[in-house]
Amino acid sequence: MNPDDTPRQIAIDKIRSSFARQSFMQTLGAELLEVGNGRVRIGFSRDERLLQQHGFLHAGVATAIVDSACGYAALSMAPVGSEVLTIEFKSNFLRPASGLTFEAIGEVIKSGKSVMVCEGKVFEVSPSPRLVATMSATMFVQAVSASHA
Amino acid sequence: MNPDDTPRQIAIDKIRSSFARQSFMQTLGAELLEVGNGRVRIGFSRDERLLQQHGFLHAGVATAIVDSACGYAALSMAPVGSEVLTIEFKSNFLRPASGLTFEAIGEVIKSGKSVMVCEGKVFEVSPSPRLVATMSATMFVQAVSASHA
Amino acid sequence: MNPDDTPRQIAIDKIRSSFARQSFMQTLGAELLEVGNGRVRIGFSRDERLLQQHGFLHAGVATAIVDSACGYAALSMAPVGSEVLTIEFKSNFLRPASGLTFEAIGEVIKSGKSVMVCEGKVFEVSPSPRLVATMSATMFVQAVSASHA
Amino acid sequence: MNPDDTPRQIAIDKIRSSFARQSFMQTLGAELLEVGNGRVRIGFSRDERLLQQHGFLHAGVATAIVDSACGYAALSMAPVGSEVLTIEFKSNFLRPASGLTFEAIGEVIKSGKSVMVCEGKVFEVSPSPRLVATMSATMFVQAVSASHA
Repeated sequence: MNPDDTPRQIAIDKIRSSFARQSFMQTLGAELLEVGNGRVRIGFSRDERLLQQHGFLHAGVATAIVDSACGYAALSMAPVGSEVLTIEFKSNFLRPASGLTFEAIGEVIKSGKSVMVCEGKVFEVSPSPRLVATMSATMFVQAVSASHA
Repeated sequence: MNPDDTPRQIAIDKIRSSFARQSFMQTLGAELLEVGNGRVRIGFSRDERLLQQHGFLHAGVATAIVDSACGYAALSMAPVGSEVLTIEFKSNFLRPASGLTFEAIGEVIKSGKSVMVCEGKVFEVSPSPRLVATMSATMFVQAVSASHA
Repeated sequence: MNPDDTPRQIAIDKIRSSFARQSFMQTLGAELLEVGNGRVRIGFSRDERLLQQHGFLHAGVATAIVDSACGYAALSMAPVGSEVLTIEFKSNFLRPASGLTFEAIGEVIKSGKSVMVCEGKVFEVSPSPRLVATMSATMFVQAVSASHA
Repeated sequence: MNPDDTPRQIAIDKIRSSFARQSFMQTLGAELLEVGNGRVRIGFSRDERLLQQHGFLHAGVATAIVDSACGYAALSMAPVGSEVLTIEFKSNFLRPASGLTFEAIGEVIKSGKSVMVCEGKVFEVSPSPRLVATMSATMFVQAVSASHA
């Protein structure tokens, strides 16, 4: 048996493939760093194309990326053949994202058959490690062929 | 007296200038459609660079743009010389953003000296007019020279 | 055929009966005012037992009641034999609830098979009509016999 | 010097006194368990007067209490002579609150001059220790004599 055929590896491969299909993640320069069981990390950097009016990273960049981290964290725990849709999220922005490199972490805190609840955090990595934003998100899990919720 | 010098026109000019400095809004192809008193509309379109894994517009695109609409709606009611920072927002995603053109509307529902509460909506305009997402946001108003909240 | 046997009347009766079983609604003195299709109104009043430290109605009172209004609005649109559970809600508090009588209104803005999205508002009715709080809520719809989400 | 006169003890006394003035906390049977620096714990129990239609503790009970825990956590870090108002909160409900005793914990995750961001958790303590709800809240800090935000 090929170790790449375990359910765990299949889930990771599916998430990497899905992430690669998200053109917006490429536009944002986001990189999938780690896919754990119910936990996903994504890295990204300051870029001249992604700023708000004061020259900081736009809050929407961090939000989009940590939403993806939460969604893939949910997908990592969903049955094979499922898709995950974001129902809602709420984010608090603790300080301007003035740094150079960042990391978004999404984690499942409640895994249900149809609904998963996730928490996300966005950290500035350099020049000074610190928390810049939080997310609380609800994901809907559906079989690929099912109708939309 | 030049009609362009009214406080109202000064606020509109300030918002247009600020919007133009947001490189992320340009990256998203967002266009400032209307600046009212406590109400701002921004238009945007489906683009190959802005998609999620199923080919729909990424939820983060709509979120970033409706956050800007809410922030500028707050700025339109703030005293001259203020800046507006997003403290937090919460969005519900009602259906996949499968359309071609969209409009985000931000409105102030409570204007305070330090805190403004806004509600946002994202509509698909074509091919079928319908609501795709909501936002409830809190903005912090500060004098430009003041320390961060 | 008895007009009380229409699906519409059955839904209203079910909601009135469910509301009567919520002992917490009685503790709060809440009264079911109106059950529409996807819209529910509940009235309540200032009471010495329901205050916060400055003598205003506690924010938790308004929140609990508008959550019920949203939940029953969802139930009014759900198939017969369903139950509705609150997945999450977010509320903004626009001003202290200093009034004497209040009304909470919950409305469904997106009705899905498994998930409904609702918006709620809490108004002060007397002495001065005005909006005091908002709610954005997600409800899960399940058949009575189904396992929890 | 009396050790009861330290700023730390003054803050604790102020919070205990404020909590005692919240008649709604008494109506809910809530008990202030611990006041730390930026962290507050409140205990409560199932009661026949506090239930929803299926006989579980009403979500509004947990919400009101964890909001108070977050608010007092913020107050514990605010300058002497400040008051704290809830601007907004968002809660996810992970499972029905079917237990007998509960604990709500509020913690400050970002302390600013005017705005504090808090996270709350509600745990069932008996019969089975487990997380039942989360809260993400924003608090406004004002000097007692200042006008409302």
